[in-house]
Amino acid sequence: MRIIGIDPGTGILGFGVIDVAKNGKTTLVDGGVIRTPVKEDDAVRLQTIYEEICDIIADTKPAEMAIEKLFFAQNVTTAMTVAQARGVVLLAGMRAQLKIAEYTPLQIKQALTGYGRAEKKQMQEMVRVMLGLKTIPQPDDCADALAAALTHAGQHKVN
Amino acid sequence: MRIIGIDPGTGILGFGVIDVAKNGKTTLVDGGVIRTPVKEDDAVRLQTIYEEICDIIADTKPAEMAIEKLFFAQNVTTAMTVAQARGVVLLAGMRAQLKIAEYTPLQIKQALTGYGRAEKKQMQEMVRVMLGLKTIPQPDDCADALAAALTHAGQHKVN
Repeated sequence: MRIIGIDPGTGILGFGVIDVAKNGKTTLVDGGVIRTPVKEDDAVRLQTIYEEICDIIADTKPAEMAIEKLFFAQNVTTAMTVAQARGVVLLAGMRAQLKIAEYTPLQIKQALTGYGRAEKKQMQEMVRVMLGLKTIPQPDDCADALAAALTHAGQHKVN
Repeated sequence: MRIIGIDPGTGILGFGVIDVAKNGKTTLVDGGVIRTPVKEDDAVRLQTIYEEICDIIADTKPAEMAIEKLFFAQNVTTAMTVAQARGVVLLAGMRAQLKIAEYTPLQIKQALTGYGRAEKKQMQEMVRVMLGLKTIPQPDDCADALAAALTHAGQHKVN
């Protein structure tokens, strides 16, 4: 089964596509980030994000989407800008008829490292190992998106 | 010129379409709300909102969109759910090639009543008067959306 993972953001939005074999083995299909210029209007940036995600889904044909749940308290303005981007990504998933699963940062850390307070470096190292890669995927946003996808892959094994 | 105003929300999202004549006179074209069930998944609700807004735009053919800027501090979770909905509405506007303008609640109150701390009832009464209606448009979310559209209409008169 193919899963697209998403780390929501507006300046940088990470994505990562993985395949899950029947034995649970996970392999990397594609990964990267969508960057949108800060000085651009929100609406223009949202359109870019939507269209690029639609293209990535069309190219890689995942069956399911795993997306990080937002959990902010510090900067409400940033949180709302990211939430807007998350909205158009969810829409892209719905319109492509993907099954969508949402995970909190805590759930993702727990799933990958068995420890909800794991450090970012530990998480990224687990992403590298689980996908059999030589180096940690760059930038961080891409590794975070793959972490969401791997969390979802783990759910399937259990079920 | 025809303007669609939007009061963003997820449970209820208000919209209002008005025409602005060359002499500045404003008339009501359409108005109402899009309701989505709270128990539905976010992604499903976002798709409903997106598709209904696209339909309304296709039916009424506005040239410009006026949308309220979010300004929350109390409940971050609600704010983010509303921001997601706002994201798909901005996307619908962009894809229909509308010119999009954003106004804070303060700007809308100021534009309609000349007073940034006006009460909701005063605002709604101004919407009624400016559109030459017998009664205040219901529900509140529709009146708020029309208030955003009327604010944008006023900007055009000045320019």
